[in-house]
Amino acid sequence: MLNFGVIGYGYWGPNIVRNLSSVEGARVLTIADLNPAARKRAQALYPSVNVTADTNEVLRSKDIDAVAIISPVWTHYELAKAALENGKHVFVEKPFTSTVEQGQELIELAWKKNLRIMVDHTFLFTGAVKKIRELVDKGDVGKLYYYDSTRVNLGLFQHDINVLWDLAPHDLAIMDYVLGVQPEAVVATGQKHLSEHEDVAYLTLYFPDKLIAHINVNWLSPVKIRMTLIAGEKKMLVWNDLVNDEKLRVYDKGMEVTSQEGIYKQLMVPRSGDMWCPKLESGEALQRELSYFVECIESGKDAFNDGRAGLRVVKMLSAAADSLRKRGAQVYL
Amino acid sequence: MLNFGVIGYGYWGPNIVRNLSSVEGARVLTIADLNPAARKRAQALYPSVNVTADTNEVLRSKDIDAVAIISPVWTHYELAKAALENGKHVFVEKPFTSTVEQGQELIELAWKKNLRIMVDHTFLFTGAVKKIRELVDKGDVGKLYYYDSTRVNLGLFQHDINVLWDLAPHDLAIMDYVLGVQPEAVVATGQKHLSEHEDVAYLTLYFPDKLIAHINVNWLSPVKIRMTLIAGEKKMLVWNDLVNDEKLRVYDKGMEVTSQEGIYKQLMVPRSGDMWCPKLESGEALQRELSYFVECIESGKDAFNDGRAGLRVVKMLSAAADSLRKRGAQVYL
Amino acid sequence: MLNFGVIGYGYWGPNIVRNLSSVEGARVLTIADLNPAARKRAQALYPSVNVTADTNEVLRSKDIDAVAIISPVWTHYELAKAALENGKHVFVEKPFTSTVEQGQELIELAWKKNLRIMVDHTFLFTGAVKKIRELVDKGDVGKLYYYDSTRVNLGLFQHDINVLWDLAPHDLAIMDYVLGVQPEAVVATGQKHLSEHEDVAYLTLYFPDKLIAHINVNWLSPVKIRMTLIAGEKKMLVWNDLVNDEKLRVYDKGMEVTSQEGIYKQLMVPRSGDMWCPKLESGEALQRELSYFVECIESGKDAFNDGRAGLRVVKMLSAAADSLRKRGAQVYL
Amino acid sequence: MLNFGVIGYGYWGPNIVRNLSSVEGARVLTIADLNPAARKRAQALYPSVNVTADTNEVLRSKDIDAVAIISPVWTHYELAKAALENGKHVFVEKPFTSTVEQGQELIELAWKKNLRIMVDHTFLFTGAVKKIRELVDKGDVGKLYYYDSTRVNLGLFQHDINVLWDLAPHDLAIMDYVLGVQPEAVVATGQKHLSEHEDVAYLTLYFPDKLIAHINVNWLSPVKIRMTLIAGEKKMLVWNDLVNDEKLRVYDKGMEVTSQEGIYKQLMVPRSGDMWCPKLESGEALQRELSYFVECIESGKDAFNDGRAGLRVVKMLSAAADSLRKRGAQVYL
Repeated sequence: MLNFGVIGYGYWGPNIVRNLSSVEGARVLTIADLNPAARKRAQALYPSVNVTADTNEVLRSKDIDAVAIISPVWTHYELAKAALENGKHVFVEKPFTSTVEQGQELIELAWKKNLRIMVDHTFLFTGAVKKIRELVDKGDVGKLYYYDSTRVNLGLFQHDINVLWDLAPHDLAIMDYVLGVQPEAVVATGQKHLSEHEDVAYLTLYFPDKLIAHINVNWLSPVKIRMTLIAGEKKMLVWNDLVNDEKLRVYDKGMEVTSQEGIYKQLMVPRSGDMWCPKLESGEALQRELSYFVECIESGKDAFNDGRAGLRVVKMLSAAADSLRKRGAQVYL
Repeated sequence: MLNFGVIGYGYWGPNIVRNLSSVEGARVLTIADLNPAARKRAQALYPSVNVTADTNEVLRSKDIDAVAIISPVWTHYELAKAALENGKHVFVEKPFTSTVEQGQELIELAWKKNLRIMVDHTFLFTGAVKKIRELVDKGDVGKLYYYDSTRVNLGLFQHDINVLWDLAPHDLAIMDYVLGVQPEAVVATGQKHLSEHEDVAYLTLYFPDKLIAHINVNWLSPVKIRMTLIAGEKKMLVWNDLVNDEKLRVYDKGMEVTSQEGIYKQLMVPRSGDMWCPKLESGEALQRELSYFVECIESGKDAFNDGRAGLRVVKMLSAAADSLRKRGAQVYL
Repeated sequence: MLNFGVIGYGYWGPNIVRNLSSVEGARVLTIADLNPAARKRAQALYPSVNVTADTNEVLRSKDIDAVAIISPVWTHYELAKAALENGKHVFVEKPFTSTVEQGQELIELAWKKNLRIMVDHTFLFTGAVKKIRELVDKGDVGKLYYYDSTRVNLGLFQHDINVLWDLAPHDLAIMDYVLGVQPEAVVATGQKHLSEHEDVAYLTLYFPDKLIAHINVNWLSPVKIRMTLIAGEKKMLVWNDLVNDEKLRVYDKGMEVTSQEGIYKQLMVPRSGDMWCPKLESGEALQRELSYFVECIESGKDAFNDGRAGLRVVKMLSAAADSLRKRGAQVYL
Repeated sequence: MLNFGVIGYGYWGPNIVRNLSSVEGARVLTIADLNPAARKRAQALYPSVNVTADTNEVLRSKDIDAVAIISPVWTHYELAKAALENGKHVFVEKPFTSTVEQGQELIELAWKKNLRIMVDHTFLFTGAVKKIRELVDKGDVGKLYYYDSTRVNLGLFQHDINVLWDLAPHDLAIMDYVLGVQPEAVVATGQKHLSEHEDVAYLTLYFPDKLIAHINVNWLSPVKIRMTLIAGEKKMLVWNDLVNDEKLRVYDKGMEVTSQEGIYKQLMVPRSGDMWCPKLESGEALQRELSYFVECIESGKDAFNDGRAGLRVVKMLSAAADSLRKRGAQVYL
């Protein structure tokens, strides 16, 4: 039985505690939060759990094996470092850290202590993303052309980070997982309207072999959109995460490059076949992710969404933030 | 009665001829096209019109008052120049010209000869764009935050231009018309996959006062999307051009910046009221545009979509093309 | 403080208990269910509540003021009767009873004992239905033409009732509430495919003054549809309960009957104006309904969804079931 | 070369003439219409065709082999009879005739004269209906449960017929074609609001073996819907005719009837697999239908949409009209 401490019981923390409660082999011993209202809610739902304002009751507890850090990003490094130094495995909210250096340091520390880090890239455990990865991996999509994601809605302005650091980690983590290759350079633009943080941002990532990615994130959209287009030589995918059914559509579409006798230039003709919505694995992604974390701790193996995966996302975010400040100047990775 | 000559009877030309045929005060005398199949189709539908392979029968005809140029963009300058030099008014397909210099020269020539130029920015005559402009002009939308357009579909690869020069002129012309301000700088990214021309491209335009615009154009999308989001302080608009009804949705949404007693930082709270789909003017936009062209010629006044409007779009395209080559380097306008 | 007992903790019961827990002035003392698994779930979530297999601990308890009956429809009459005889107010799941006679008897009993009955027509407390009722009441919709509802999906076959008794109570209760008039006759058709109960059924209800209603219910549909069209002389409404936003669309549409000089017959011309999505009250409908029940008990007033409202729905269901058996024979109400 | 005469150049007639003009082996010699405006439009588009007000120039012409009758339904019988008596093949708009007797007489007459009748059930030639028929025929859908169609919109009130005779022929012809079995009885309800003809109507058709069909037609709907659900034991189909792409969705869904050990009653569990949108044949359905008519005339074979198919639809319409008058009384076929 792995004993967990959870730091942060605000918006996302309750989902972590609820799911940990039903993961086999895991148990929540302590929940820490500075906010008295959050502690009250936690204690009401979990009368037998120790609820505290003092993070040291989690970080220094001898009974706790693993710590879930669900707090603002600027606190991740300090908390994770303390947890690792005290011999605890770490599950940490996305984005992993605020800087590349912090991430590297945590990875080294975990390696030395032989502890696991998992970064909460929940989307990687959804049926849709698992199926997309499978289709790309098997070669069904063919040589990849582009990855284009739109993630916009109204509200949930963050006080400490801009829309890039808030929303783009989802897309970057998914992109990293399904494409399996690293970008060479990033170009980012955006604007701040209502606070000192950008509320709209647009990213382009250049990859080898003409692959390109584009991400549109926005806190000021009247409509919520969660749509990703992924096109390859053989198939084209549209993932709409907001519909209940048929989230993933697989199009047998493309352009055929043909040469006709007597015609001096190549003709490009659109090809259009069936469309197919594969049945996706159902169930709660976070449940699967936390079970997998327990499994990784028990087996001593690294997760595919370990610190290194988290660091790759932080590297892209840092480069994008740099490009954003320079209004689109290309930043190499 | 104004006599028209039409040069180019390929994809769009037939629509020009058909609509000119029902514009009061206009008449098509001659259609010129190099392609025998196009000429055959034109002659079959319009037995009484002179159909020819020789553009000079249009450009040098003494009976023709105005020339509609519906040919590839690289031919616009030569044809329009010849038409103006021969004293003819010019209606020219978008984009106006291939270079800024060409556009400037044509505008000067028209000014000297007291002739009209109209650039075919058809969308400006649709019910949706007219209503958007009206809502922005009246101040209903409030201070503008951003303009974000997606224009993607499969196919119709152009041989002579990239996706930027093919699709973005629509968005740039609409943006220019409804925002009524000029951008300061442009950042463009993109990639070519199947030919020597980019088939996906992403544009950001920086305006004064924190206004920003973003345009996503793509020839390699499995689904067709024609969606524009325009957000201001008071209202937010979503224009979906692919639905038959309710193309334009006006949201009474926004973020309220509030300060609460005892709370040290500002709170931003989403505001959400009614949604409203105004009834839009119906009828064919091209018909309205050509009637307006006839009206401009007769009254001697310049159209709002005159050569200068066309030139503003070409300037943005040229700067974007420059930025695209430099992988996102900011280009000032 | 009103003390509640809840009978039935299967699919819907947990929602009743959860909402009662946060209604001011209400408290759940006892939960009864025959199923050990249900009792285990209840006890785990509510350690301080008395959980039992014996309904008499609810029905005969001296501490309990009101009973919520969330059990199969064939048990409603016996349980509600016992509750009323023991001086308890009754909140009962829809449909109210299995027969008209049962409903009448319970209403009389409650009247004699001066107790309240509320039938759980939850939809009447949703923002959409409240707004529809308001628009009809204010006369905005004008003289009503028809009410047409489709409520179809796959699964959730009931063992003891057919699709009519399972799904149509929702539509009949809403219809009864927003139209405010009683039907004269009903025609019902349908078919059973997989069990001894009909899994598809189609109802027509004839009202005075040419008003007509139609309800399509189906357990065998591959897609889920929850759509209601309500048309009147002045406005037409479309309520789609499955979308998150803009559930209710109000169309300024209709037919104009005009007579033109020199034309011997009337012309009917479609009229089409703006479309409008009013902002709807948010929050959980069941919460509002249970608060209203507590308020009705405390003030001694009858709810608009009291036993008589429940009985009107049972009368329509009984007549429809009769017509269904006779393959569409009209049954007068 | 088959010479055609066309009677009726109102709303649908121009489509017949336009398509006949490009059918190989067919030619339009004469167009007849009583309305001078219609004749003017026809003559302008087809200068070489004989355009007349006198139907006898079609019916009695020695040069004409086949007559297309695109006039109001109450004129079909007289015109078709005259055409057949004059030795001409007949293509006639749906519904075939106003009464069953008229239809029978025309079929007999055509048989005696060895002439072809085709009833214009255009939808049978669309890619969607052809694919549905193929899926049902091959057994992919399995034993059929129901056919449920909604065909509603605003406007286009007919002066001479009700909504049943106007819109339901489409559904009945498609249903007849894809199900391939005849109904035993019909139940119809509806209401008239604005004229002497019903503007909303609901049909149920009972077939052998528990198959049931339902059709909802309405001239007073604020939104246009063209949706058909067809469910069978193995697959369930949803056909939405208003979308450009993916009109037909094939769901691998159903209910599994299982018996579990220790459980006394059958459990019904929903089964849900992939969804699939087969690529549909494109091109204009009317073009295919008219080519097929020419082919049937030349080969002397009867079309599948011949007079007998038209008569089956008229029989259902007549029975439905009878049931509608009797407010849902079941009428046997």
